[in-house]
Amino acid sequence: MTVQEQFLSFAGKPQASLPTPSLLVDEKRLAENLECMARFFSDKPAKLRPHVKSHKCSALALRQVQAGAIGVTAATVEEAEAMATSGIRDILIANQVVNPFWVDRLVTLASVCDLKVAVDSERTISLLSQAAGGRAEIGILVEVNVGMDRCGLPPGETSCALARRVASLRGLRFRGFMGYEGHAVGLEDGMSRAEACKRAMSLLTGTVEMARRQGLPAEIVSAGGTGTYDVAGAFPGVTEVQAGSYALMDLQYRRVRKEFQPALRILSTVISRPSPTRAVADAGLKSLSTEFGIPEAVAPPGVRLQDLSEEHSILEVDEENRLGPGDRVEFLPSHSCTTVPLHPCMFVVQEGLVREVWMIDGRRGFRPQSCEAPRGPRASEGR
Amino acid sequence: MTVQEQFLSFAGKPQASLPTPSLLVDEKRLAENLECMARFFSDKPAKLRPHVKSHKCSALALRQVQAGAIGVTAATVEEAEAMATSGIRDILIANQVVNPFWVDRLVTLASVCDLKVAVDSERTISLLSQAAGGRAEIGILVEVNVGMDRCGLPPGETSCALARRVASLRGLRFRGFMGYEGHAVGLEDGMSRAEACKRAMSLLTGTVEMARRQGLPAEIVSAGGTGTYDVAGAFPGVTEVQAGSYALMDLQYRRVRKEFQPALRILSTVISRPSPTRAVADAGLKSLSTEFGIPEAVAPPGVRLQDLSEEHSILEVDEENRLGPGDRVEFLPSHSCTTVPLHPCMFVVQEGLVREVWMIDGRRGFRPQSCEAPRGPRASEGR
Repeated sequence: MTVQEQFLSFAGKPQASLPTPSLLVDEKRLAENLECMARFFSDKPAKLRPHVKSHKCSALALRQVQAGAIGVTAATVEEAEAMATSGIRDILIANQVVNPFWVDRLVTLASVCDLKVAVDSERTISLLSQAAGGRAEIGILVEVNVGMDRCGLPPGETSCALARRVASLRGLRFRGFMGYEGHAVGLEDGMSRAEACKRAMSLLTGTVEMARRQGLPAEIVSAGGTGTYDVAGAFPGVTEVQAGSYALMDLQYRRVRKEFQPALRILSTVISRPSPTRAVADAGLKSLSTEFGIPEAVAPPGVRLQDLSEEHSILEVDEENRLGPGDRVEFLPSHSCTTVPLHPCMFVVQEGLVREVWMIDGRRGFRPQSCEAPRGPRASEGR
Repeated sequence: MTVQEQFLSFAGKPQASLPTPSLLVDEKRLAENLECMARFFSDKPAKLRPHVKSHKCSALALRQVQAGAIGVTAATVEEAEAMATSGIRDILIANQVVNPFWVDRLVTLASVCDLKVAVDSERTISLLSQAAGGRAEIGILVEVNVGMDRCGLPPGETSCALARRVASLRGLRFRGFMGYEGHAVGLEDGMSRAEACKRAMSLLTGTVEMARRQGLPAEIVSAGGTGTYDVAGAFPGVTEVQAGSYALMDLQYRRVRKEFQPALRILSTVISRPSPTRAVADAGLKSLSTEFGIPEAVAPPGVRLQDLSEEHSILEVDEENRLGPGDRVEFLPSHSCTTVPLHPCMFVVQEGLVREVWMIDGRRGFRPQSCEAPRGPRASEGR
């Protein structure tokens, strides 16, 4: 039995039979989140291209595509390969790929699907152009720094100049611009968030307009996250939005996005009740991330997560609470994007039953070297 | 080609050919760390049982056993299974195992190797006894709370009472006591650390002595970590020490343990140089843990790690530094134990060459359900 077969065999079984710690996805809440986002985009010129870095899971991505997404956004070549293998053809890697091992796999991927990748330097586009050779044509988005100050070129002429260079290089095809307003997406005050996003989108679309006047029209203008999808998605000139966390949600985004429900929990088992006010469960730092704060115990009632060590959750419990070894505790993660890849799979549950098992197939080190040929014809049937 | 074959194929190749981010193990430093620890234990009555939670890697554990360790300590059943499959037979799971899925696998494991597991409650030993049935005899260490206040029973009669119950239950075999002085191992002041460790060891060995007077001699008295191995390992009555981090080391332990050298680095590739004083590399929170602080950029000189996002390291660089896309940057992790399982394998390097590739085979979700039958005879040839 392979690892994958082993996990898939839990489909149809009671949630109580699961190994812990495990990821649980609430099927109904997930469906409602996907529907809520689809409703927003149903009457906008911009389209949704959900970021799969939040779940690294092709089964979930396929649901997003079924709900109307035009394709997906990925952060790594491995994520993109998992998506391509599942049949999704329209893929943006919203990141610079420079390492030669990954560049080689990127070129292979570009030869079998409609792939776009971000760039922000002359050196990177030379590398990509050389690697592409006659093997493939790589779609290119020039990344514009819209205020986050991570990657990306300054808006305006510097970005346009790189776009012109891209258009001149063999093996590359200029497709447009992207800019991620990562400095805005988490601002708690909705007004400040919207203002910061609009300033960022003005910088991005101003650059697009400059390139158009230079005879270089951008087919794709990609931006936005879960915190800003509504502002970015309604901004004139933006063609697609990269929101990803809306599907599973977490404590961090729950503060700013009430229209989506937390659909991801971590199931754990109590392993010790060493004192009347303390219990210990088996989910720790190796199954729950903490860089955005400590997760929250949501079930059963009367349990508060105080601390995590590597394989332990330290819980404060009321003295009268009879929680003991073998009982289950569920946590909401503070950050889904970094919690999910600590696990091999997600168990999709409803009413105490495992409905489906989804492998985290974009996880680091999950896939063999060569991307499997995607199923079906090359055309973008992923819509 | 399987994932494992793909990674193993890097053996013999230049370090420059590796995908990034990747784990690098300095072969010479690792060997020196193992030797340094072996030297300490060569004239002590206590033995070394290294904790594999720090690396989850059977290839590294085998080196520790070759260097004189009597067996290994594990935190999870998956880690223990990886060790058993590699031929290591003397295994302690220094944690409570309660979840029925894992208890079942624990019993399977106990039927093929010399397995011990920690317990601290009546409910847990009943569960284990029932699960063992006629299938196996599970070795049991009663966990004593020696001051860390996580799991474990109070020292003295409460712990002895559970030991007596263990001795009375079918399918279980009382082997001794364990106590982990996790509150002491990280204390920066060596004197305070030694004092805290001695107080903890007194509580543990006092309990052992009480049980002996009750006619229940403990064959195993297990304790200690990298911060306290010398004190715990020389304390009368302690039979084995669970230190693990000494092999790979990290920033946290470098502050308190100068005799071991940092042997683990994370290799990354610069993907962007967006400003004269800023560069961005491809190792982020999904390949470097931060709960013990931010990692340190150690090569090339003149580079300082400022921040991490999911797939990006934000570097401060000197203006005259020509670091750009494609160049490599190496980091020391702040906490090896939580950084290693973010990766599928470690590349053992020396002088720019990949000497060996070691899978992180105790990683969550790496192994199929049934533990492969260990190689060779059942006797503890793992010494």
